[in-house]
Amino acid sequence: MERFEHGGNVYAHPGCVDFSANLNPLGMPTSAREALRDAVDAFAAYPDPACTELVARIAAFERVPQDWVVPCAGASDAFARICQALRPSRALLCAPCYSGYEQALEQVGSRVTYHDLSAHDDFAVTHDLVRDLEDGIDLLFLANPNNPTGRCVEPDVLESCVANARATSTTVVLDECFIDLVTHDGSGWSPGSNVFLSQNPNLVLVKALTKSFCLAGLRIGYALCSDGRVTTRLRRAGQPWAVSTPAQVAAVACLADEGADYLDKSRELIARERMRLEGALRSKGLRVVPSEANYLLFYGPLGLAESLLDHGILIRSCDNYRGLDGRWYRIAVRTPRENDMLIEALNRLFGPKGVLPFGS
Amino acid sequence: MERFEHGGNVYAHPGCVDFSANLNPLGMPTSAREALRDAVDAFAAYPDPACTELVARIAAFERVPQDWVVPCAGASDAFARICQALRPSRALLCAPCYSGYEQALEQVGSRVTYHDLSAHDDFAVTHDLVRDLEDGIDLLFLANPNNPTGRCVEPDVLESCVANARATSTTVVLDECFIDLVTHDGSGWSPGSNVFLSQNPNLVLVKALTKSFCLAGLRIGYALCSDGRVTTRLRRAGQPWAVSTPAQVAAVACLADEGADYLDKSRELIARERMRLEGALRSKGLRVVPSEANYLLFYGPLGLAESLLDHGILIRSCDNYRGLDGRWYRIAVRTPRENDMLIEALNRLFGPKGVLPFGS
Repeated sequence: MERFEHGGNVYAHPGCVDFSANLNPLGMPTSAREALRDAVDAFAAYPDPACTELVARIAAFERVPQDWVVPCAGASDAFARICQALRPSRALLCAPCYSGYEQALEQVGSRVTYHDLSAHDDFAVTHDLVRDLEDGIDLLFLANPNNPTGRCVEPDVLESCVANARATSTTVVLDECFIDLVTHDGSGWSPGSNVFLSQNPNLVLVKALTKSFCLAGLRIGYALCSDGRVTTRLRRAGQPWAVSTPAQVAAVACLADEGADYLDKSRELIARERMRLEGALRSKGLRVVPSEANYLLFYGPLGLAESLLDHGILIRSCDNYRGLDGRWYRIAVRTPRENDMLIEALNRLFGPKGVLPFGS
Repeated sequence: MERFEHGGNVYAHPGCVDFSANLNPLGMPTSAREALRDAVDAFAAYPDPACTELVARIAAFERVPQDWVVPCAGASDAFARICQALRPSRALLCAPCYSGYEQALEQVGSRVTYHDLSAHDDFAVTHDLVRDLEDGIDLLFLANPNNPTGRCVEPDVLESCVANARATSTTVVLDECFIDLVTHDGSGWSPGSNVFLSQNPNLVLVKALTKSFCLAGLRIGYALCSDGRVTTRLRRAGQPWAVSTPAQVAAVACLADEGADYLDKSRELIARERMRLEGALRSKGLRVVPSEANYLLFYGPLGLAESLLDHGILIRSCDNYRGLDGRWYRIAVRTPRENDMLIEALNRLFGPKGVLPFGS
């Protein structure tokens, strides 16, 4: 097996506390667990190919018409279908960004160029991105918030980006997989970019329930677009029965009325705990990128991931992100108890006075 | 939503007895149901990307080395990955055959030619297929048994087909999704073509647990190939975490020691009930293609599917199969009680003396 380059591979590190996968620390909602247990007998039949109930729930949750919704087997399936359906000759990616975009583009032979985000600027997406768009780019992958930085795109940058892209017939694939867990300044939250869809048929929004509702084992996400030609092609690019029955059952349960409450509680917890983790990292003299999401990117000593693994804690080394190196790390914001464990481990590794016991 | 062209869409016909999907009539094994209920909490984390335990079980079940095994999200995912990875310029299909092959080939722009099977010959695959292979074909999709005919390929035809293909560097994708439910002459059963893999690196075997173990809602299948370059490309063509945790959990449970017993019982039941259904159809004067699988293709009056639907029975009209028309139907072999219901409905529709009450 080749090196697996994503977070969350707890199978390779059994018994560890997992800070490497950016899942909602509240865990899977009870309603989803119960719905799954009750539905086991129904897993024998083929899944509903139209995902009838799921599409209705997603449309209501996102306040969009049902025919804008394309359910997928996780965001990865959405990215793959978009590339299959649109076959962009040239694509633009930010660096650093999620590696799955490039993999999906490689499958259809797209030429990829990069807009480098600057560490000096804490990896902010600025109007410079709009300038890089003006050069025969067919498709832009953009994440809001970006992964692994945890930074959201400022609304005015996002708007001018999507508007300029529309003028040059560029498709903007906006990955908002983490948007439902975002808080600004520890309080207000972001409504997401679904409001831009109706005016911008060149915008494809991708979301996953994987992260927001902690359903990572089930592979469930969706694409939203107001252009019927695009949604038709996205549906055709998928496999028959792409979304499994357990994924449909759990997602329907999550998006029921309780969904909003659960997300409110999740954001509250994440905002509070993120601040605490950020403080702990800074107290060790580590540089932390200001995050609005449920994860933190920071710059630390080489070998930190290995040292933490010795303490039973799995974090994400970012050495395989373009634009980052082996001293950048990403951690998820977890439950108070788990975060305590991480902070204690850091205290032990760095000593009470924040002195680094290991190299460079 | 466009017309869904496969069987098993019970969601569009709630409450019907489903003869349109070719699933094992014994239903999901109890071990799988229990394993799924016990594992619900584990669905929150990402799936094991390496499918470690599943690969070990599949390898043991198929008696092949573990590195020949590529787990997939159902056979559809395997077909899509094969086309993505190998990008055949020209492909050969039998007609009739499963429509998913053509869809997967279309996604990568392959030119498809057809080897027409003859109704006069009960759609047997003969040495004529080998002749059609000799013409710059990069890839052949072949099903054993074929769907919707239920007929197996004779071993000598299969062997010379694979050997000739090897000589012309043609990949043979052999779909044996139904092989574990096959019986010959009501007794002996087919060991499948895994024994050909080591000598034929150009052979890719595809199987799905969907049908054999009645796990259709979970999307689980696999490809087997002895050529490491091919399996590496098939793994890369898939998405990260392609196989969901419920799919891995249920498949592992099914392939445990009980698996063989369950399949023995399934084949016994299917052989007995298939004979009974075949007799009932013939007693109405209908032409039935001799089947070795868990389904039967027969020629009946136009409108039969609609008439049976009025009796709460869903069968598969084959009008969208190339080489068939709207008077061909496919039915799955179901449980004795369900088969009784179908036979009674046929008795009512055709009258006691087999007289057709409806047109042509």
